[in-house]
Amino acid sequence: MALPVALDAYGADGGPDLVLEGARIVAAEGIPIRLFGPSSLDPPPGIELDPTNEWIGNEAEPVAAVRSKPDASVVRAAAAVADGRCSSLVSAGSTGAMMTAALFALKRAQGVHRPALAAQIPVPGSDGTPLVFLDAGANTDVRPQHLIQFAFLGSAFCRPVLGVEDPRVALLSVGEEQKKGRADVVEAHEALTGAEGIRFIGNLEGRDLLSGEADVIVTDGFTGNVTLKTLEGTARAVADAVRAAARSGPVASAGGLLLRPALGGLRRSMDPNAVGGAILLGLRGVAVVAHGSSTPEGIANAVRLADQAVRERAVERTGELLAAAGATRDALREEPSGTAER
Amino acid sequence: MALPVALDAYGADGGPDLVLEGARIVAAEGIPIRLFGPSSLDPPPGIELDPTNEWIGNEAEPVAAVRSKPDASVVRAAAAVADGRCSSLVSAGSTGAMMTAALFALKRAQGVHRPALAAQIPVPGSDGTPLVFLDAGANTDVRPQHLIQFAFLGSAFCRPVLGVEDPRVALLSVGEEQKKGRADVVEAHEALTGAEGIRFIGNLEGRDLLSGEADVIVTDGFTGNVTLKTLEGTARAVADAVRAAARSGPVASAGGLLLRPALGGLRRSMDPNAVGGAILLGLRGVAVVAHGSSTPEGIANAVRLADQAVRERAVERTGELLAAAGATRDALREEPSGTAER
Repeated sequence: MALPVALDAYGADGGPDLVLEGARIVAAEGIPIRLFGPSSLDPPPGIELDPTNEWIGNEAEPVAAVRSKPDASVVRAAAAVADGRCSSLVSAGSTGAMMTAALFALKRAQGVHRPALAAQIPVPGSDGTPLVFLDAGANTDVRPQHLIQFAFLGSAFCRPVLGVEDPRVALLSVGEEQKKGRADVVEAHEALTGAEGIRFIGNLEGRDLLSGEADVIVTDGFTGNVTLKTLEGTARAVADAVRAAARSGPVASAGGLLLRPALGGLRRSMDPNAVGGAILLGLRGVAVVAHGSSTPEGIANAVRLADQAVRERAVERTGELLAAAGATRDALREEPSGTAER
Repeated sequence: MALPVALDAYGADGGPDLVLEGARIVAAEGIPIRLFGPSSLDPPPGIELDPTNEWIGNEAEPVAAVRSKPDASVVRAAAAVADGRCSSLVSAGSTGAMMTAALFALKRAQGVHRPALAAQIPVPGSDGTPLVFLDAGANTDVRPQHLIQFAFLGSAFCRPVLGVEDPRVALLSVGEEQKKGRADVVEAHEALTGAEGIRFIGNLEGRDLLSGEADVIVTDGFTGNVTLKTLEGTARAVADAVRAAARSGPVASAGGLLLRPALGGLRRSMDPNAVGGAILLGLRGVAVVAHGSSTPEGIANAVRLADQAVRERAVERTGELLAAAGATRDALREEPSGTAER
């Protein structure tokens, strides 16, 4: 019997009832679920409830909140994974609280300095395989050896979970030439060029994110967070403007009606709910951050991602790949301090 | 009689003939032009030609190229501005070569450590005033005092050239709270909060770029370049996908035809050619970088921007505003080294 996925019922914009809706979808598919949320929830058979009325909001300082609230839903859920009562952790709440709770409870994997948040970006016009983009915001200040590890973590994740056998890995920079970019990016580029155990294809620029040239794109968590939100904001602004244009008069409205079915496919192919959120790589367990604005289907997809990562032994296989590549050993040698900045 | 604008005829993807086309448009409006380009060009009366067959390509290392090629078109054009024979510099060639040539010939303005490249981003659905976004790529490694100066430079530029009286200035970061972001951004935020002579409104995130909440958004040149290209690439990918959807079948095609006039307005409102390129702020003269993929109208708009900045005395007024705000004096005090990087 498989262990249940620990699902934080708090934190989604739609509230605990929406998370429960998502849980029903995956429970019906045979994925066992343990919900951590309000005692007022009334889950159907097949979904366990670990009742708690405490939770951590977006405005709380993550480290202080996780330390002072042992009964907060995300802290209890992370502890259940660490204890071996649950297989993996999923939350749509505060990303900072989730990362902190996961890091404290699950610990970093052997040789990993900094866990990184890997987002999956839907690529319009692709075969459905999303782009893996990290770090999406876990580490705002990094050194070159962190970027190098992120590259190996992203590459190793692609194989078991996305089925990409020999993923193409690129660094995000301001030009394709090796010497272009911030000093840490130039240094990481040099170290990754010709490195064994990874298919490093060089730098890519912001305009190439959706081009399909790479399977994994690596950057620091500050640039990654800003870039990801720019991408989402721009896609939304253009889509809104198209919608406004299609309401700007009777002729345009008729055109919009005829075009709607074809645009619906595009909207679905770009929907962040379709890819199930971001996964925290470099831990001794599986932790998935769902969008705060998730639909029930978005929650279900986040749980499916966690479940698949567990079944495919993503953590163990990532560890083996990292060890084989010698990436952790080499990078550790350069680490001036052994402490992770959350 | 106004001095001519020094226009580099090389470097546009469309070649010198396209640049000449752009020159014709503005010459017809009464803006005098001096072209620096191939002797084979045959400009009409009203456009002077300073013939040279040397130029600097995108692949060249900017500092080495500018030093070793005194007859390259962009170097000659920058020298003409420094000598007082031309009013301002416009080039659609290598941004690095242009910035280097301008920095060497025109010099930094009093108290400015690092000139910054200010892009103008069309905001769909706005009144037509673009967002000023800097640094778009001049400085990939910055310190907090550079971000502070960029904020004052962007703010000062808005008034004379865009007519925005009391521009709202924001820092780009990963969250709106002051403590969120990379260490240099947090420090700049603290210094700008309550600073005199600037209307600092706090942090904005990547998803807010096109929201219209700020008139000026400030970041380092690495994040700025990546963000700007992500924005352009995403807008293009979504627009391409809408176009593909509108060709996906007879019903959709009919809808696309009916919608086309309305979408044309949107395309024009988001066209980077409409805003005339990016201006290098913090020099003792006006230098404008046009898009490499400029149309003749894009070249014309870049020249109009340069001409307007000269007529409005943007450089002098920016200097007065910086001095009045005490920004240069305070920031200079903290500058450990007086030399600009490249």
